[in-house]
Amino acid sequence: MSKVTVIMGSRSDASIMSAAFSTLNELGLSFEVRVLSAHRAPRALIEYVDSLPERGCQVIIAAAGGAAHLPGVIAGLTDLPVIGVPIPTKMMGGLDSLLSIVQMPGGVPVATMATDRAGAKNSALYAARILALADDELAGRLAEYNRKQTDNVVRQQIFGSDEIAASET
Amino acid sequence: MSKVTVIMGSRSDASIMSAAFSTLNELGLSFEVRVLSAHRAPRALIEYVDSLPERGCQVIIAAAGGAAHLPGVIAGLTDLPVIGVPIPTKMMGGLDSLLSIVQMPGGVPVATMATDRAGAKNSALYAARILALADDELAGRLAEYNRKQTDNVVRQQIFGSDEIAASET
Amino acid sequence: MSKVTVIMGSRSDASIMSAAFSTLNELGLSFEVRVLSAHRAPRALIEYVDSLPERGCQVIIAAAGGAAHLPGVIAGLTDLPVIGVPIPTKMMGGLDSLLSIVQMPGGVPVATMATDRAGAKNSALYAARILALADDELAGRLAEYNRKQTDNVVRQQIFGSDEIAASET
Amino acid sequence: MSKVTVIMGSRSDASIMSAAFSTLNELGLSFEVRVLSAHRAPRALIEYVDSLPERGCQVIIAAAGGAAHLPGVIAGLTDLPVIGVPIPTKMMGGLDSLLSIVQMPGGVPVATMATDRAGAKNSALYAARILALADDELAGRLAEYNRKQTDNVVRQQIFGSDEIAASET
Amino acid sequence: MSKVTVIMGSRSDASIMSAAFSTLNELGLSFEVRVLSAHRAPRALIEYVDSLPERGCQVIIAAAGGAAHLPGVIAGLTDLPVIGVPIPTKMMGGLDSLLSIVQMPGGVPVATMATDRAGAKNSALYAARILALADDELAGRLAEYNRKQTDNVVRQQIFGSDEIAASET
Amino acid sequence: MSKVTVIMGSRSDASIMSAAFSTLNELGLSFEVRVLSAHRAPRALIEYVDSLPERGCQVIIAAAGGAAHLPGVIAGLTDLPVIGVPIPTKMMGGLDSLLSIVQMPGGVPVATMATDRAGAKNSALYAARILALADDELAGRLAEYNRKQTDNVVRQQIFGSDEIAASET
Amino acid sequence: MSKVTVIMGSRSDASIMSAAFSTLNELGLSFEVRVLSAHRAPRALIEYVDSLPERGCQVIIAAAGGAAHLPGVIAGLTDLPVIGVPIPTKMMGGLDSLLSIVQMPGGVPVATMATDRAGAKNSALYAARILALADDELAGRLAEYNRKQTDNVVRQQIFGSDEIAASET
Amino acid sequence: MSKVTVIMGSRSDASIMSAAFSTLNELGLSFEVRVLSAHRAPRALIEYVDSLPERGCQVIIAAAGGAAHLPGVIAGLTDLPVIGVPIPTKMMGGLDSLLSIVQMPGGVPVATMATDRAGAKNSALYAARILALADDELAGRLAEYNRKQTDNVVRQQIFGSDEIAASET
Repeated sequence: MSKVTVIMGSRSDASIMSAAFSTLNELGLSFEVRVLSAHRAPRALIEYVDSLPERGCQVIIAAAGGAAHLPGVIAGLTDLPVIGVPIPTKMMGGLDSLLSIVQMPGGVPVATMATDRAGAKNSALYAARILALADDELAGRLAEYNRKQTDNVVRQQIFGSDEIAASET
Repeated sequence: MSKVTVIMGSRSDASIMSAAFSTLNELGLSFEVRVLSAHRAPRALIEYVDSLPERGCQVIIAAAGGAAHLPGVIAGLTDLPVIGVPIPTKMMGGLDSLLSIVQMPGGVPVATMATDRAGAKNSALYAARILALADDELAGRLAEYNRKQTDNVVRQQIFGSDEIAASET
Repeated sequence: MSKVTVIMGSRSDASIMSAAFSTLNELGLSFEVRVLSAHRAPRALIEYVDSLPERGCQVIIAAAGGAAHLPGVIAGLTDLPVIGVPIPTKMMGGLDSLLSIVQMPGGVPVATMATDRAGAKNSALYAARILALADDELAGRLAEYNRKQTDNVVRQQIFGSDEIAASET
Repeated sequence: MSKVTVIMGSRSDASIMSAAFSTLNELGLSFEVRVLSAHRAPRALIEYVDSLPERGCQVIIAAAGGAAHLPGVIAGLTDLPVIGVPIPTKMMGGLDSLLSIVQMPGGVPVATMATDRAGAKNSALYAARILALADDELAGRLAEYNRKQTDNVVRQQIFGSDEIAASET
Repeated sequence: MSKVTVIMGSRSDASIMSAAFSTLNELGLSFEVRVLSAHRAPRALIEYVDSLPERGCQVIIAAAGGAAHLPGVIAGLTDLPVIGVPIPTKMMGGLDSLLSIVQMPGGVPVATMATDRAGAKNSALYAARILALADDELAGRLAEYNRKQTDNVVRQQIFGSDEIAASET
Repeated sequence: MSKVTVIMGSRSDASIMSAAFSTLNELGLSFEVRVLSAHRAPRALIEYVDSLPERGCQVIIAAAGGAAHLPGVIAGLTDLPVIGVPIPTKMMGGLDSLLSIVQMPGGVPVATMATDRAGAKNSALYAARILALADDELAGRLAEYNRKQTDNVVRQQIFGSDEIAASET
Repeated sequence: MSKVTVIMGSRSDASIMSAAFSTLNELGLSFEVRVLSAHRAPRALIEYVDSLPERGCQVIIAAAGGAAHLPGVIAGLTDLPVIGVPIPTKMMGGLDSLLSIVQMPGGVPVATMATDRAGAKNSALYAARILALADDELAGRLAEYNRKQTDNVVRQQIFGSDEIAASET
Repeated sequence: MSKVTVIMGSRSDASIMSAAFSTLNELGLSFEVRVLSAHRAPRALIEYVDSLPERGCQVIIAAAGGAAHLPGVIAGLTDLPVIGVPIPTKMMGGLDSLLSIVQMPGGVPVATMATDRAGAKNSALYAARILALADDELAGRLAEYNRKQTDNVVRQQIFGSDEIAASET
């Protein structure tokens, strides 16, 4: 039983979504992954989304590019929180994916993340933030993750212009 | 039995889509209109689209705004030709609606029209172009429509600068 | 004790965020509202965000426009899930607000909603989706809300072209 | 006699439009291809478009990039349905091509597809949807094509996080 | 015989193009104005453009909005210099009109002006710059026009903060 | 002798720039204002910018819209710090003004502010930040200004959902 | 004595503008080329533009990228027709260059070409269209150039689907 | 003691910001560089910004990409002038970075530079323009820098078409 389900509109989205997979693993969150399509397999999509509560799923991450309908259509099929990841495209760097996911009509929310691998990683972290509300151990792991992240930034040295100049020679 | 079905994502889209209704009427094409939603009523949408062939529908016009998933989702549910009309929004004049409709993945085509009333009118004319391939009377009415349209442009007078100056006084 | 906190970058954002307030009320979710600024009152913002867990807050909704840093800065100050609402501006209808909120770097997620009142309403619904995971009564009210929403769409009549023509006369 | 004609604004568009050619072939639709230009050879374009009905053409696919006038100009020369494919450019990934094709004035519709190879492929599928209305065999081949497409999605396995982790080692 | 011809895609463009008419009048340049359409009356457009040299035309100003093909199509029909004016639309303030006019392929140039009335006015001034190369009297009137324009800017007073404060009281 | 000079590309920019004037007044910074143009009066512009050092000017604020060349051209004529304010237009809310001011080539910097009145106000505050480096009294007034600004935010009450509900009745 | 002058904002623009150089050569139009800058050498720019009439220049081509002020500033310094070529950048494929050149205020026109090499080539052709008005030999060469261009398009073969299929094997 | 501090949102920004480092060195301005984050280390950021006045800092340069909050957040923590550099991204070439930095609300100004290395270089030059107001030696070095920059442009030769043709052989 996994509390997180990742649905991708295309197999090729895995190159971006691997950033979500590794972060979920790092946080000790098991998950399942399925390729499905709001356009090419709408009936299979409904069946699968309908089955998710009994499979133990509590948060759905959905990734898609272009006319990226997958996250929004899933959000209309379930009451679970859905997190959308816009896969970048050649059309203005993925503005089409972003707008297709984020501009949902009132009534059916999708939690939209950034385009590209940063958004994929953040979809995992956002799932963790949601699940940590009722899971103290996960909350602890998430807090530790965030603390390390801060430390990685803070412990970077201050460089002076002399050192910069030296390093450029 | 109507060969054209118009599906709108929201009741308020009728203020734009009335340009389609009046053009379909002008061309003598009967049609039916239904408000449905890929997000708020996905199962009813499937049921309705599944029923369209036996209701005699041959062309579907779908209008939606924002994360405008309706035309694309319908196109995934049927083999009939689907025409999409992007309803304008405040987000860059409707670029969100346009990209959400037009940037469909390979495999599931939507014939996208212009944003706003020009696109609504053209959805009716495009439906007529499709249906006229197997309907000589409609082809005749369409040809007549286009001829009048050309005449309206051609018979406009040439104005000289004197007349312009005079008309401004 | 309210589980939902709404932080707005400016008092004038209330005209948009009232769509969130009324939806939270409709769902029986108590909340508190505060105007704060990542730019004009950063230290007060930290103090307030630090106080939220002990005030019972589980989900934060943050609204801002333009260089809309508020949701992202809050997300960096807490492990709670943060929902961002981009307030529309005159710059491409609010593309500046949207990109400033959604394009967060890997590590600090913000759940971005649509621009404008649809996004404000959806921020309330998304908070409910999160909180319903551990609150069966809320889950029931949310399911009821979504059922009614579907019904409102489904029970709309099919109109034929005759009726449309008649209603236009 | 081919029912589908493909007109390209430039020879180099063939690298994109090959996705249309192979899909038309797969669907058993014969077609003819011609390079013409609304700007560099307008009179030859008129002559050719005028000849299409007697050559048996029922659907025209037109591809162009930049100030992509070809599909719209063709649509003004014929009553046949025209499908436009925006060839991507360096200007915002082809937003110039897309807007030049899709934003047609009321009266002269062009069925606009997505930019790039997805749009090229879909132009072939859309032509098939139109022609299948009066061709049961084609309708059968199209239904089979769509069924396979769905199967390809549906039969993809569900992966668990263990398998993902394993495959990454 | 007028050396300048103004062709508009729609009658309603006159509200913008009146800025061109009045500037042409001011510079003593006679002109003729015609409404024509690359889409709705392509054959009449060719006939008219073909007739322009013998009518004495030396410069063509063409205005259009949306998928604004008129200036580019005219440029493909003549060797005369063509000046294009993008009429603003609701789609990103007229970015569709601008890109449709300016992004012409190599081989067929259109001199594109700004969107809106500034561009309309400048189309007249650019026509004057071209014609003044072979018309010393016009060159004199143009120089005088530009001198006055400079004077209008230069003779504006410098205000101090005291005066500003006073004028605000 | 004023340390701040405001140059506007057009008289009508004053409706936006009044936000700069009143902020400069509030901070006790005297200034002078002149309308000039990089296009219509380039030689007068050079003369005026050349005269600024001996008039005591230390910071130049320049406002312009559309192809907004004024701030960049001024920056090429002086070694003083130049602050640019993009005046909004109908073209994507002023993206043309913004990009024309901010995308300066390496070598000639312009400090670009936000579009519209927020940017105008901030141009005054940025001038104050620069001048306060060598003027302790101004530094004090600026610190006071910022403190009040923070207080205005901080002292806003927290509202509970009861109060919101009440205020809506 | 050259009738055409090409001014580039940077030496590196030559990689784009070589398309103009070769087209001018092909049309037998001599020209001179200079690198100058509205920002880094404004006074030298004025001096040079002032000298152009007596050097025999009748048309100025100006190329620049980013905050591309060069064509507009030149247009403010002369009564000669100025043609602007937007050099592409990484910012939305050169939308910054395009808007900075085309959105000129009323009073100072710049004839804007497409971004990139197509625009560079067209700047040469537009210069030829202008100069051909008073130069019958050039008019002949230009007509010949355009005729060949048309022939190159027209004489391309029609391919059938068999041939396409064959060529793909 | 360095008067200039450079804060980068990520270590990888150094590949762009090296253009600032080398220009600061060239102008003889010592500086210090630190990687910090408004999101991942907000409390360390406050501490560091608070320490800057006593470390002698007078101007802060801040670089960030995507939802680039760093410069704006710093500007809210200090009264010193802040210069923002938008790091380019795949999203429309960095429009997200640019809008997130420049569209600051009234009250908290950030001096925004161009995206990419041109902006990085200009951030150094703008710091120099500010500091030169109270440092005559720096003013001299800056004037010399600008003079050389102008000379580099001015001393470039004029090429004739013969030479261009020759160099292409």
